[in-house]
Amino acid sequence: MGDATEDDVATAFAPATVGNVAVGFDILGFALASPGDRVEVTRIDESTVRIAEITGVVTDLPTDATENTATAGLVELIDDLNLDFGFEVRIEKGIPLGSGMGGSAASAVASIVAADSLINRRLSRPELLHYALLGEAVATGEIHADNVTPCLFGGLTLTRSIDPVDIIEIPVPEQIRCAVVYPHRRVDTKRARQAIPDELPVAQFVEQSANLAGFIAGCYRGDLDLIGRSLEDVLIEAHRAPLVPGLTAVRRAADEAGVLGSSISGAGPTVFAWCRSAKSADLAAQQMADAFVAEGCDTSVWTGAISVNGAHLVEGLNRSTHFEGQIR
Amino acid sequence: MGDATEDDVATAFAPATVGNVAVGFDILGFALASPGDRVEVTRIDESTVRIAEITGVVTDLPTDATENTATAGLVELIDDLNLDFGFEVRIEKGIPLGSGMGGSAASAVASIVAADSLINRRLSRPELLHYALLGEAVATGEIHADNVTPCLFGGLTLTRSIDPVDIIEIPVPEQIRCAVVYPHRRVDTKRARQAIPDELPVAQFVEQSANLAGFIAGCYRGDLDLIGRSLEDVLIEAHRAPLVPGLTAVRRAADEAGVLGSSISGAGPTVFAWCRSAKSADLAAQQMADAFVAEGCDTSVWTGAISVNGAHLVEGLNRSTHFEGQIR
Repeated sequence: MGDATEDDVATAFAPATVGNVAVGFDILGFALASPGDRVEVTRIDESTVRIAEITGVVTDLPTDATENTATAGLVELIDDLNLDFGFEVRIEKGIPLGSGMGGSAASAVASIVAADSLINRRLSRPELLHYALLGEAVATGEIHADNVTPCLFGGLTLTRSIDPVDIIEIPVPEQIRCAVVYPHRRVDTKRARQAIPDELPVAQFVEQSANLAGFIAGCYRGDLDLIGRSLEDVLIEAHRAPLVPGLTAVRRAADEAGVLGSSISGAGPTVFAWCRSAKSADLAAQQMADAFVAEGCDTSVWTGAISVNGAHLVEGLNRSTHFEGQIR
Repeated sequence: MGDATEDDVATAFAPATVGNVAVGFDILGFALASPGDRVEVTRIDESTVRIAEITGVVTDLPTDATENTATAGLVELIDDLNLDFGFEVRIEKGIPLGSGMGGSAASAVASIVAADSLINRRLSRPELLHYALLGEAVATGEIHADNVTPCLFGGLTLTRSIDPVDIIEIPVPEQIRCAVVYPHRRVDTKRARQAIPDELPVAQFVEQSANLAGFIAGCYRGDLDLIGRSLEDVLIEAHRAPLVPGLTAVRRAADEAGVLGSSISGAGPTVFAWCRSAKSADLAAQQMADAFVAEGCDTSVWTGAISVNGAHLVEGLNRSTHFEGQIR
């Protein structure tokens, strides 16, 4: 960090997220406790954005600041606020690329949260979202907030509208634990999007809507049975299934393990499940992973509660203790 | 009622209902306090169903019991339960035909609720729903529960599934008042259904889903502003608008009156609005009615809270006082 003083450096952690959540294509997402990306931002005299380092599970990312999801928002920020200084950025990727766990969103969110700390936290929540979305748009070519929103704010979020910003935090019953299984394959987000026809049958819409409404009601009621009956994607998943090796077997394994529901996380190939307990989530993760392995895929698994915090400042990169303070 | 004793006669009132509720095509509906249909059912010795009388705002209905929405369910009931007696039915229609206010559902519900009272209320809630749906199916040719469910149970209901039955009562903020304006035109339900393409754009579905989820969340939170932002149909209404004379002007009048949201009730042509207060609902009803009149349509209007009761037994047809006891 060279000559920079402590006030000139900030590091933020932004968690992996599950977008779509089976019944809320492009509108629902939730945050995991881990994995996640860390971004260290250092104030520099020059009014520009430099990428100093990219480490972790992904390193072959653009080093041009306007093309990297972690920095595109910062470039706009400097311009919008007419800052007479700039940012040097170190990115530590914890989320695999093309895994469907919101890796590009996490880098974008971590960098804006860290940068905001260097400008006296002057950004409002909608502004933080705005700049994070600019970063995410570099990666996907389109603006979708179902990963960025829960990554930034934590919890289970409904993005009712991006313009104007209308984000609703949906309560999650506290017993809920997630199992997330990542098969070591990469799905291109654009290809996953192209797999969905432009038009779909109204009858399927109706069924999916009923599940969405049941899921939201179940969350507010704390009704795990209702969540279990509702958490099923009848609209989108079938179109993306060919991109996820062994999806049918993995989802069957999840059902046999007694999960409330499971589906592709975001564009895939990661598959998530909601479970009634930590024990159930551990069992589901193991059996889902076994099913992927049977298809010839190595896997990584994570289990745990939904993160209520979202992105937050941490002490720094590569240190053993982290300040887990919430940014809001 | 001839020689029938009091225990051999029962009368039930079933309210008009608003199906779809802008954002919940085929899955959401709510009950009004009025208008409604009344059906008097008298036990007869013969194991059959006879329609003795049809009065009120609609009289040109089938008198064959298997073809009338009020009696088709009773025919099945007698068969299923091997009853050695039957029912004579008098129907007093309060809901205009083809108005979009769930008139066929109301007749089907009122008759099964009255008949259930004559068999010692032995039918469960799912069974009541089942027989009422059989009646409704006679009218529409298909089974849709978004009118029957709130008509039977009251309130705002989500029909997540019909088979198996999965009905969720969604709480409505107590301040909410409805304005319902019926232009004296008739819309054929089947034609209204045919107006909707078999497939619709995914992008519109995403937007509608976001509104549906926001609406459900707003109801649970008691957040009228969120309800106001969410209660808009971006998926179905445009396709049915040509069937409703002056819809654009009527909805504009509603917006100018400050409603939370408005849309076609069921298949139309009735238009409903949700409002923040009784005063607001009165104003909206007046201005919406004026807009219909400007299009050359006479109107009938109703305002009031959502009925929490749904269908219930009443003292009888053509009497001045009614027993307002709830059936459940």
